[in-house]
Amino acid sequence: MKIALAQLNYLIGDFEGILQKMGNAVARAKNAGAGMVVFSELSICGYPPLDLLERADFVEKSSQYLQKLADNIDPGIGVLAGAPEFNQGKKGKLLFNSAFFLFGGEIRQVFRKALLPTYDIFDEYRYFEPGREFNILEFGGVKMAVTICEDLWDEQPFENQFSRKRLYTLNPLEELSRYGPDVIINLAASPFSHRKLEVKQSIFTGKAARYGLPLLYCNQAGAQTELIFEGGSMAIDREGRVVRRLGFFREDFEVIDLEALSTRKMEPRQGEIPDRIGMIADALVCGIRDYFGKLGLKDATLGLSGGIDSAVSLVLATEALGAEHLHVLLLPSQYSSEHSITDSVELSENLGVRYDILPIEEVFNQFRKRLEPLFGELPEDITEENIQARIRGVMLMALSNKFGHILLNTSNKSETAVGYGTLYGDMTGGLSLLGDVYKTDVYLLARYLNRKRPAIPENILSKPPSAELKPGQKDEDSLPPYDLLDRILEAYIEKQLPPDEVASLGFDRDLVERVIRMVNLNEYKRYQTPPILRISSKAFGVGRRIPLVARY
Amino acid sequence: MKIALAQLNYLIGDFEGILQKMGNAVARAKNAGAGMVVFSELSICGYPPLDLLERADFVEKSSQYLQKLADNIDPGIGVLAGAPEFNQGKKGKLLFNSAFFLFGGEIRQVFRKALLPTYDIFDEYRYFEPGREFNILEFGGVKMAVTICEDLWDEQPFENQFSRKRLYTLNPLEELSRYGPDVIINLAASPFSHRKLEVKQSIFTGKAARYGLPLLYCNQAGAQTELIFEGGSMAIDREGRVVRRLGFFREDFEVIDLEALSTRKMEPRQGEIPDRIGMIADALVCGIRDYFGKLGLKDATLGLSGGIDSAVSLVLATEALGAEHLHVLLLPSQYSSEHSITDSVELSENLGVRYDILPIEEVFNQFRKRLEPLFGELPEDITEENIQARIRGVMLMALSNKFGHILLNTSNKSETAVGYGTLYGDMTGGLSLLGDVYKTDVYLLARYLNRKRPAIPENILSKPPSAELKPGQKDEDSLPPYDLLDRILEAYIEKQLPPDEVASLGFDRDLVERVIRMVNLNEYKRYQTPPILRISSKAFGVGRRIPLVARY
Repeated sequence: MKIALAQLNYLIGDFEGILQKMGNAVARAKNAGAGMVVFSELSICGYPPLDLLERADFVEKSSQYLQKLADNIDPGIGVLAGAPEFNQGKKGKLLFNSAFFLFGGEIRQVFRKALLPTYDIFDEYRYFEPGREFNILEFGGVKMAVTICEDLWDEQPFENQFSRKRLYTLNPLEELSRYGPDVIINLAASPFSHRKLEVKQSIFTGKAARYGLPLLYCNQAGAQTELIFEGGSMAIDREGRVVRRLGFFREDFEVIDLEALSTRKMEPRQGEIPDRIGMIADALVCGIRDYFGKLGLKDATLGLSGGIDSAVSLVLATEALGAEHLHVLLLPSQYSSEHSITDSVELSENLGVRYDILPIEEVFNQFRKRLEPLFGELPEDITEENIQARIRGVMLMALSNKFGHILLNTSNKSETAVGYGTLYGDMTGGLSLLGDVYKTDVYLLARYLNRKRPAIPENILSKPPSAELKPGQKDEDSLPPYDLLDRILEAYIEKQLPPDEVASLGFDRDLVERVIRMVNLNEYKRYQTPPILRISSKAFGVGRRIPLVARY
Repeated sequence: MKIALAQLNYLIGDFEGILQKMGNAVARAKNAGAGMVVFSELSICGYPPLDLLERADFVEKSSQYLQKLADNIDPGIGVLAGAPEFNQGKKGKLLFNSAFFLFGGEIRQVFRKALLPTYDIFDEYRYFEPGREFNILEFGGVKMAVTICEDLWDEQPFENQFSRKRLYTLNPLEELSRYGPDVIINLAASPFSHRKLEVKQSIFTGKAARYGLPLLYCNQAGAQTELIFEGGSMAIDREGRVVRRLGFFREDFEVIDLEALSTRKMEPRQGEIPDRIGMIADALVCGIRDYFGKLGLKDATLGLSGGIDSAVSLVLATEALGAEHLHVLLLPSQYSSEHSITDSVELSENLGVRYDILPIEEVFNQFRKRLEPLFGELPEDITEENIQARIRGVMLMALSNKFGHILLNTSNKSETAVGYGTLYGDMTGGLSLLGDVYKTDVYLLARYLNRKRPAIPENILSKPPSAELKPGQKDEDSLPPYDLLDRILEAYIEKQLPPDEVASLGFDRDLVERVIRMVNLNEYKRYQTPPILRISSKAFGVGRRIPLVARY
């Protein structure tokens, strides 16, 4: 039998659109001679629907559209689609996270997710009761072990450094293997994380090899607000070789000959995982494109400071949205250097993006005059720096309000971590592009993007970073050098190492404590940042929940 | 035996301070002749520690301080204290949420929470493995069924309107009742919700009556960022009568004679639950006080608009922090009415709060001038309204930055729900006081507060609400009347009813759809609001997770 992997990009809750899209994929599979199509997890409604799952009408609509899908498609082809299912038992959570087998115009069989990720960005136990019955799908003379995403991740140790304990007490594949399956199928919704692609692949190849079974893995593609799903669905043979991999960050479709896969007659293609920085760039472009596309928006703005972050943001946004949909502002103050403006102009012109220059000095002076009765003879301090940043925020939001351009936030992860930014100033925007990218990676991104299209002036790449909010200011007056800072931050935030262990990696103990103090003191600022496109295993936002009020 | 209920207010992660506080309570209990002291859930570190539980050092420190507590206290008194416990098993989540019995300088016994709330603001399955072994505490000749908070909530139906299913598959008390206990003990961390106090009480009185056992319930008191714990610990007799209730929203301590409780010799006191609006007022004052107190902050600012929301916010803040710690700004524009200023001045003077009047017209004109090259001859619209709101945000944050006054946000729940507010304008602040209080309740709060201390001028109470951002503007030009709006919002947000069912409560179908559309379109604004003091069963913020990008 031939099985099609339909890797689609879903707009959550767009039942009609999704039905159409899935129906088209089934028709395409039928035409290609496939006997079956596999979609991704919760495909009927898109993943993650979050608290929409608490709405009866949402779950009922999911069920209706699942039935519509069964009704609409060719009755001679089998389909595995994901959907929430009401738990009909008298006790337990309201729903199961299920995969349904459709055939002959009917919903034939159901498979329930047993391992429910409830960590980082995942909250599945909030909604779902774990499946506790295991059954096999027999179709077209093939026995299939149908699993849903995390079901194959039972061997995953806690992300945490201090335990090698297994997170789950159950191994669904072990249960299913009793039925003597011929193939493992996995419907997934597995988000991108730039250092986890190898891990993810090894989970699946390991299972295939251990059980001596071919494995078909279908992931969703595209971004859901901050989460970016890379796609990269795979066909893996029984030796654990990836023989087919579907595209990254886009919809894709491939028909796999199960017999060829099972008998190791398929020659591997696309075994390599692309370069890390290139993947990050593609992920971010996908994240921007889907945020706008799914909300029905077209136009964006941002403030070009002359620095590397806004430059990289603009290049990414231009790639995602098209130069004609960008309109940026240069908002120099009396402290802005000449080259900040000339570099920004050059960048805009290289990209063909409309820009305007609106100096903020007069507004700034007016604010100062107005605040004089309050401030009297007090010396200038961070207050005046913040006022400038906030004036820029007001200007950018004015353009956004008047013309409907969504403001893109350009803060990077390093400064977001240590609070080197102004709330309601440069921390504004509808979407943060680089809030999960450390400054050192922003530089690597810039060079990568410039290799594809040399748009960012060399001077932006080479000059020392500065907020230019007071005379002669440099980031490194307030912060450690970024190569040092970023490694400390990664150890503390991604690896969650305690201060002692961070220091033991070879950093000065006082510096480590200073950095950690800055991170902890600025939780309140991050509480109010825009959604951040997530590319790491621990991004600021929904996946990281730290008390604002604590002494630790 | 006499048992002390020690209802304390914890600063999360302040191990040294907590140790002291718990030690003092044990000493006090000893002096009062108690044989045992009961603290609340996770008392050793404070609840909820959130992702601090993912840090090995945090959990290890919890264990160390639990041992220190055992070492420090009188060895002749028993103590039940809550703490995270490492799961020593090879599989499963890293931790248990446990209660430890300390006696004779030792940790004697452990009791593990079996029911882990994972809904609304609770994420316990994120951290904890459920306890699956049940054992009894025998101490001083008494058999005690030790439970932790949710363990007694097994009969709780899903909050959701569309299921009367039981949320849990297990009843811990049923398991424990096999040992023939003499008393039920519950260590809790149960947050306030203004319509749930009766429900909460009936859960405990119901258990006591059903099992014919007296029940001692110890809750924590005080606020943890947005969550406010009301305290209100109880002693309930075996007939299910509340015979003692500890104070609301404050630390409290009471010694209960278990024999008197068991033999129904205690006369009930404090059976009544106070007035709803009074409880909300007390909750909010507690929320403000603890936010500031626990962060070591003293001073606050806010913008007085002449409207009811900022007036009520100021009265609450003054009660929480003291008039000498407030410094408010009046920021009139050309559209502000005369009475907005005079009413605000009168309010400030009634309260004895420092105020300054800083007109924003000149700054606003400067912004308009600066934006002219971009906006040309385009008519004024919401953009210009937002600029005014944002200028006020900049002014207030300038005062905050210069003098260290934390900006309090004064938006109410009705406007937050429908997006009737300006991001980075009136939606700024470190803490939102009224973001979970509907406008109609804000009025009730105002009247309640004025009865205690007539500070809010009658004109503020009686004039029609207006944002005063353009000539003659009234809220009801853009929004339905608040008494209507609030009931629709409550049905949609708290009760999660689908549009049809909201309408069937007696509202116009088109109006319902318009309101729901406004709610859904403004998720992006709420993503960036400050933490909101939670007083309802469904507040905007951590307990409500709706996709920003969706079509539903």
